Amino acid sequence: MKKVTIGLVGFGNVGAGVIKILRDRKRFLSDKTGTEVVIKKICDKDITSKRNVPVDKALLTNNINEILDDPQIDILVELMGGVHPAKEFITQALLKGKHVVTANKALLAECGKELFALASDRDKSIYFEASVGAGIPILKSLREGLVANKFLDIFGIVNGTSNYVLSQMAKDGCDFSVAVKDAQKKGFAEKDPTLDIEGIDSAHKLVILTYLGFGKLVEMKDLYIEGISRVTLQDVGYAKDLGFEIKLLAIAKNVSGELDLRVHPTLVPKGHMLASVNGVFNAIYVSSDLAGDLMFYGPGAGQLAAASAVVSDIIDLAQNMKAGMFRPKLNIVEDTAIHKLRKIDERLGRYYVRLIVLDEPGVLAKIASVLAKFGISIASVTQKERIARMGSVPIVMISHEAREKDLRLALDAINKLNAVTQKAVAIRIEEL
Amino acid sequence: MKKVTIGLVGFGNVGAGVIKILRDRKRFLSDKTGTEVVIKKICDKDITSKRNVPVDKALLTNNINEILDDPQIDILVELMGGVHPAKEFITQALLKGKHVVTANKALLAECGKELFALASDRDKSIYFEASVGAGIPILKSLREGLVANKFLDIFGIVNGTSNYVLSQMAKDGCDFSVAVKDAQKKGFAEKDPTLDIEGIDSAHKLVILTYLGFGKLVEMKDLYIEGISRVTLQDVGYAKDLGFEIKLLAIAKNVSGELDLRVHPTLVPKGHMLASVNGVFNAIYVSSDLAGDLMFYGPGAGQLAAASAVVSDIIDLAQNMKAGMFRPKLNIVEDTAIHKLRKIDERLGRYYVRLIVLDEPGVLAKIASVLAKFGISIASVTQKERIARMGSVPIVMISHEAREKDLRLALDAINKLNAVTQKAVAIRIEEL
Repeated sequence: MKKVTIGLVGFGNVGAGVIKILRDRKRFLSDKTGTEVVIKKICDKDITSKRNVPVDKALLTNNINEILDDPQIDILVELMGGVHPAKEFITQALLKGKHVVTANKALLAECGKELFALASDRDKSIYFEASVGAGIPILKSLREGLVANKFLDIFGIVNGTSNYVLSQMAKDGCDFSVAVKDAQKKGFAEKDPTLDIEGIDSAHKLVILTYLGFGKLVEMKDLYIEGISRVTLQDVGYAKDLGFEIKLLAIAKNVSGELDLRVHPTLVPKGHMLASVNGVFNAIYVSSDLAGDLMFYGPGAGQLAAASAVVSDIIDLAQNMKAGMFRPKLNIVEDTAIHKLRKIDERLGRYYVRLIVLDEPGVLAKIASVLAKFGISIASVTQKERIARMGSVPIVMISHEAREKDLRLALDAINKLNAVTQKAVAIRIEEL
Repeated sequence: MKKVTIGLVGFGNVGAGVIKILRDRKRFLSDKTGTEVVIKKICDKDITSKRNVPVDKALLTNNINEILDDPQIDILVELMGGVHPAKEFITQALLKGKHVVTANKALLAECGKELFALASDRDKSIYFEASVGAGIPILKSLREGLVANKFLDIFGIVNGTSNYVLSQMAKDGCDFSVAVKDAQKKGFAEKDPTLDIEGIDSAHKLVILTYLGFGKLVEMKDLYIEGISRVTLQDVGYAKDLGFEIKLLAIAKNVSGELDLRVHPTLVPKGHMLASVNGVFNAIYVSSDLAGDLMFYGPGAGQLAAASAVVSDIIDLAQNMKAGMFRPKLNIVEDTAIHKLRKIDERLGRYYVRLIVLDEPGVLAKIASVLAKFGISIASVTQKERIARMGSVPIVMISHEAREKDLRLALDAINKLNAVTQKAVAIRIEEL
């Protein structure tokens, strides 16, 4: 039987999962592929701690060169995370003629251009299914299953931590900070949850989805990124009353040739499939021009879920290598209809706007006149019950389609009114 | 550039879609694959009617041998549907060294064993992504993306017509026959909707999903099949009151090594993702042991959606052939933990039971005593408002877990009670 030999760097949770699967499913996988996957080396700083999978000590090393310099190793499986030194290890691996499998979304989002160019130059492949949506085969689906399609929109709930926090707020009526603590207690959030909560992790994944969906490898600075830390329980409740759920969406939208890339809390209409995605689950909703509107749903994290994707990448590579002559992965082809990136100021859409104002006559008239001045027209206004101790009252408005820049200017002016006692909150509504 | 040459048989709706995509996306696809797909012949009984895609007359033939006998044609794309003569054409194509792409679920469900054996014997491939869920890349996901997984359950809403009918009944409160007529008017149902409505089409797809998920190629006679034609508006409403939607599910469940294969109307709890799948949409919900619970959602039909899947199959084959040496598709491997098929009589689960009884004292006691005799225990009973003109009253019960055989015996006995004025209705509840 043909053999494909791997070296793995990063023997953490997912790394141990990969080793476990390759062990436990050895026969199952070789029956499917006619190829045996051999684990030759496992590199980690820490080679003494116990993992939940038994490993022959001879496989363990803390010297990456034992993988990089070993010509028998066909594939570097990088599961250490973080940009450095993962980038250097992958670069070296490509230079030394190895293929790469990685789950490292931060690295691909930050340095993808360089790494993909090097891989292409060396006729090697980088596979990265586990980088978005853990075990959900979303990247293979975009690249292969939907190969003939052009994409109109991609809307992703791609950060399980944020979705858990928002779901808890909506379900249990708990505050943001309580929900975050609960997520941390359950192991769904890191000690420092910033990357997840502030939308950075979703943005990393959006860069990757945009690459697969539109053939454009954008940079992090090209994205508008806003996390969920300013979403209040109050707004979650008001949105619900209006028939919406608040979700952190990663959005790539082709608006007549301009690509609109954003991560932010979004009002999603309750009837939409994405509104039903709760807890740590992820879902990627894709509008394609041939196959129509599709959704891919599953757990967004987990040792074996991520490892399942890593193993499918290894098997894909093994299949290609078995063909004798290497079969290159399908090329990523740029959607030439896209000619520029759209700035957030130019966003056109509806907005949920929540104000806290003094409960006195004439306030609404003043607000309405400011909005009118900036061309913002209002579809509905609801005055909520008075907040007793403050003498103030919340007003919730849904705008008609407006330009983001105009809305911002209007809200700046409204915030300056004497009757407005708290800074206005605006949350984007997406028509899905 | 390398070329891959196809001959297409069945120039109907989907066939025309395939030709259109291969035309319109010629450059896009060759940029991705480095291969050109050449359409050499299109065969159909009718080569004179106009399609929505212009075709050089020289390509058209009504003689299948112009494809089968042409050694330059690498792939037969079969889109005619029906078992005969599609089976004979595919058999001939394999014997003459061609690969096959087909969307023909009826054929694969009826004659898959024979055709796959022949393909394997001749070292040729049969691809069939379009046979389930149109453009949803579910088969590629099960086979490749989830290659390392074993599956616990597969629950599919795989017939758009039935799902449309049930959705309309739930939404508009219309009767079954009205909903069917509406579906026919909108082009979502055939003139004779039997195959869709009676669960046959779902069963064909279940055979294919079972093959991909469990490595078992079962026969149609191994499945329990029940359609939606006996689902009444009344039951849709009562189920809703209890927190359920009624969906036609294709079910493959691994119950401790016994494979339970069924198609029938099912009560799905409202919070579950499958309950939100409405209209002509399809969704396949998969429980896997590594990647967890996944759902794949999208339109279940449509010219370009199905054609999108056919083209992805053609591209997959083209990629394989380009590798110089043919790269065989991943083998389907039987899940050896499965040792038998479970009969419907042995199903264990909860049931929705609806009775129409005379509104007089002691009736419920009699019914309860029959149920108790057969070991059926009841979780909830609701007496609905009296049906005026009949002097009868509906009783809706939810059972605890029971064995199907016991329930049937109990209902047979209940149907014989004088106070029972209509045959009892039972619908299975699935714990998802």
